[in-house]
Amino acid sequence: MKVHNFSAGPSILPKEVMQQAAAAVVELDGSGLSLIEISHRSKAFIDIMDEACTLALQLTGLENKGYKAIFLQGGASLQFLMTAYNLLEKKAGYVNTGTWSNKAIKEAKLFGKVLELASSKEANYKYIPKGYSIPEDIDYLHLTTNNTIFGTQLKDIPATGVPLVADMSSDIFSRAFDYSKFDLFYAGAQKNMGPSGATLVIIKEALFGKVSRIIPSMLSYQIHAEAESMFNTPPVFAVYTSMLNMRWVKSQGGVEKLGEKNKLKATLLYGEIDRNSKFTGFAAVEDRSEMNATFNLVNPEDAEPFDALCKSSGINGLKGHRSVGGYRASMYNALTIESIEILVDCMQTLEQKY
Amino acid sequence: MKVHNFSAGPSILPKEVMQQAAAAVVELDGSGLSLIEISHRSKAFIDIMDEACTLALQLTGLENKGYKAIFLQGGASLQFLMTAYNLLEKKAGYVNTGTWSNKAIKEAKLFGKVLELASSKEANYKYIPKGYSIPEDIDYLHLTTNNTIFGTQLKDIPATGVPLVADMSSDIFSRAFDYSKFDLFYAGAQKNMGPSGATLVIIKEALFGKVSRIIPSMLSYQIHAEAESMFNTPPVFAVYTSMLNMRWVKSQGGVEKLGEKNKLKATLLYGEIDRNSKFTGFAAVEDRSEMNATFNLVNPEDAEPFDALCKSSGINGLKGHRSVGGYRASMYNALTIESIEILVDCMQTLEQKY
Repeated sequence: MKVHNFSAGPSILPKEVMQQAAAAVVELDGSGLSLIEISHRSKAFIDIMDEACTLALQLTGLENKGYKAIFLQGGASLQFLMTAYNLLEKKAGYVNTGTWSNKAIKEAKLFGKVLELASSKEANYKYIPKGYSIPEDIDYLHLTTNNTIFGTQLKDIPATGVPLVADMSSDIFSRAFDYSKFDLFYAGAQKNMGPSGATLVIIKEALFGKVSRIIPSMLSYQIHAEAESMFNTPPVFAVYTSMLNMRWVKSQGGVEKLGEKNKLKATLLYGEIDRNSKFTGFAAVEDRSEMNATFNLVNPEDAEPFDALCKSSGINGLKGHRSVGGYRASMYNALTIESIEILVDCMQTLEQKY
Repeated sequence: MKVHNFSAGPSILPKEVMQQAAAAVVELDGSGLSLIEISHRSKAFIDIMDEACTLALQLTGLENKGYKAIFLQGGASLQFLMTAYNLLEKKAGYVNTGTWSNKAIKEAKLFGKVLELASSKEANYKYIPKGYSIPEDIDYLHLTTNNTIFGTQLKDIPATGVPLVADMSSDIFSRAFDYSKFDLFYAGAQKNMGPSGATLVIIKEALFGKVSRIIPSMLSYQIHAEAESMFNTPPVFAVYTSMLNMRWVKSQGGVEKLGEKNKLKATLLYGEIDRNSKFTGFAAVEDRSEMNATFNLVNPEDAEPFDALCKSSGINGLKGHRSVGGYRASMYNALTIESIEILVDCMQTLEQKY
C-alpha cells in the first residue's frame, strides 16, 4: 500500500531525489567511490557545494544581489544562537508566533536586550500579530515565517528600515516570496530543502562584522562564508541531497509554480475542514499556513474511527503536536494532491458513516 | 577497476554499510518510507538513536560506568568550542600536537586561560611530546589522540588526576584503548565511525554543571544528554549510518580484533617505507600512527612515475597534506590489507624500475 506521508519534519521529499541520493551512496557518478567516502576537498564535492549554493540563491531570486548562501550544521536551533551572536550588539526585536520563536528569544537573551514586539501567546498562537510598531534603533527584527506546530504563516512582510531576519525552516522554497526584503534567513533542511543535518543560511554580505564581540570560529557567518561552507567538513550527504532537491524544485518551475500547486493543495484541504461538520480548523483563517494545516475533531469520540480510516488509507504522520492536539497535515512541496484527496476522502467517509 | 581509497576523511567505510545505508534511503525496513522522510520522534528512529548510543558505549567498554554517549552536529570543530564552553572555568592545559590541537587551543582561549603544556611545533609536529608536567589545578587536560595530518598517534595516556579530554576523531574504534581514563572524548564521524555530519561525544555525567557561565542550549552537553540526543532534529542519515558501521565494528570482534588487523596493515606499510630506498617516513618511529602513514620521496623527481603507478593501480586519496607534503596513506578500519599490498607493490615497482 502506498504511504501518504504528512509528517511535519523530517518529511516527504520527491521519490526521484531519494532514489538519486541512494544511488550516490552506493557510487557517485561512476567514480568507483561512494558519495560518503570522498574527500570534501575533492573537485567532485566542491562542485556539489557550489551548485547547492548557487541553486539556493537562484531559487530565492538573490543571485548577484550581495547575498551569500552557506550550508551549516545544527539546524534552526543553532541559528537561534548564531543570529544573536553575530548581529545582536545592544537590542533586537522579536515577534513571538510560537514554540520556535520562543526558543529563538531565549537564546538571544544571552547576548543583549530582547524586545518582544508582538505575541499571539494569549491565543495559543492561533494568529500572526500585525500592525505592531517597530523601533528604529534595534539591531534587527526577527520573524518566523511559518509556524509548523500551530499552522500559521506570515503573508505580509512588515515594512521596516531595520535589518530583517527570519527563520524560514518550514516554508522556504514553497511560495513566491520577496526574499530580497530579508537581510538574513535560515532554514533547517528537513522540510522543503532536504534531509536533516544541513542548514541553509542566506545572508547579506553587508551584515558581516556588525558586532564588537569576538565570535567563535564555528559560530561566525563571516568565517563560514569566506571558507565557502568548507571551514570544516560539511555534512556531505545532507548537502548533496539538498542540492538534488533544489534541482527538482527548479525543474518544477521554481517557487512560483510550486507555490501555485501548494495553494491548490491547501485550498482543497481547508475547504473540506470548513465544509465538514466533523472538523474545525485551528488557526485564524487569514493566517492559515499552506504548509501545515492544523485542525481538530468537533467530537473527540470520532478520533478512533477517523484514525482507523486514515491508517487503512496509508496516511502517516497526521497526529497534531501536543500543544494544539487534534491533527496536523503537513503539505510540503513533494506531497502530491493525490495524498490530500485521500485525506479528504477519509474526512468525508467519517462524516457520512459516523 | 577497483578503487583503493586512502582518503584521510571523509573516508572509506565497509561496502556493506554503504549498501545498507543506500537501501534505507530508498525504504527503511519495509515501512514504505525512506529513512530520511520519517519523523525523528518515531519509534523507528528513537530505536536507531538508542542503538547508536549503546553501541558507542559498548565498543569503548564504558557501558554502565557513569558515561553518556550523545550524537551532535558540527564535527570536532564545534567540540573545540563546546569543551571549553562547558568545562573551562579558569584555566585548562592543552598539548599541541598539530593543526587540530591548534584550532582547539584557539577556541578555548575565548573562555579562559589556556596553558600549552607541551608542543612539538618546533619539529613540524613529527612527534608526540612526553614527560611534560601537568598542573594539578587545571580544569582539564586536552589531548589529540591521532594527528591525521602529521601521522602521529598517542600511545601512552599520561597519568594525571585532572579530567582528561580528547579529540579522537581519527582513531576512535581503531584499537584496544583504555577509554575509561578519559572524562570526555569526541569524534567527528567521518573516519572510523560513519559519514560526515554526525559527531559522537562520550562524557562522564559527573562533568555536567562544572562551570558558572550560562551555556546556550545548543552548546550544552547536559541539555543534549538529558534530551537523549534529540534536543533538536538530529542528522538522521549520519546517525543511522554510524549505527550500521558500529554494528559492523562489533561484528568484526570489536576494537581489539580491528586493532590487531590495523597493526598488521600499518606494520606492512611502515616496513616498506623503511626498507624501500625511494621513500622516507615523516613521523618519529615510536609515535607513528596506525591510521595515517605520512611519507616522502627521497628524490622529488620520482613523484611523476610514482603518481602514475598509483593511478594505474586504482589508488585514491594518497596526496599528503600541504603542511607535510609527500604522501599520506590513511588506513582506517574498512581499508583491507589488499589495498596496502597494492600500494606496497607500487612502491616496489618504483624502486625496481626507476
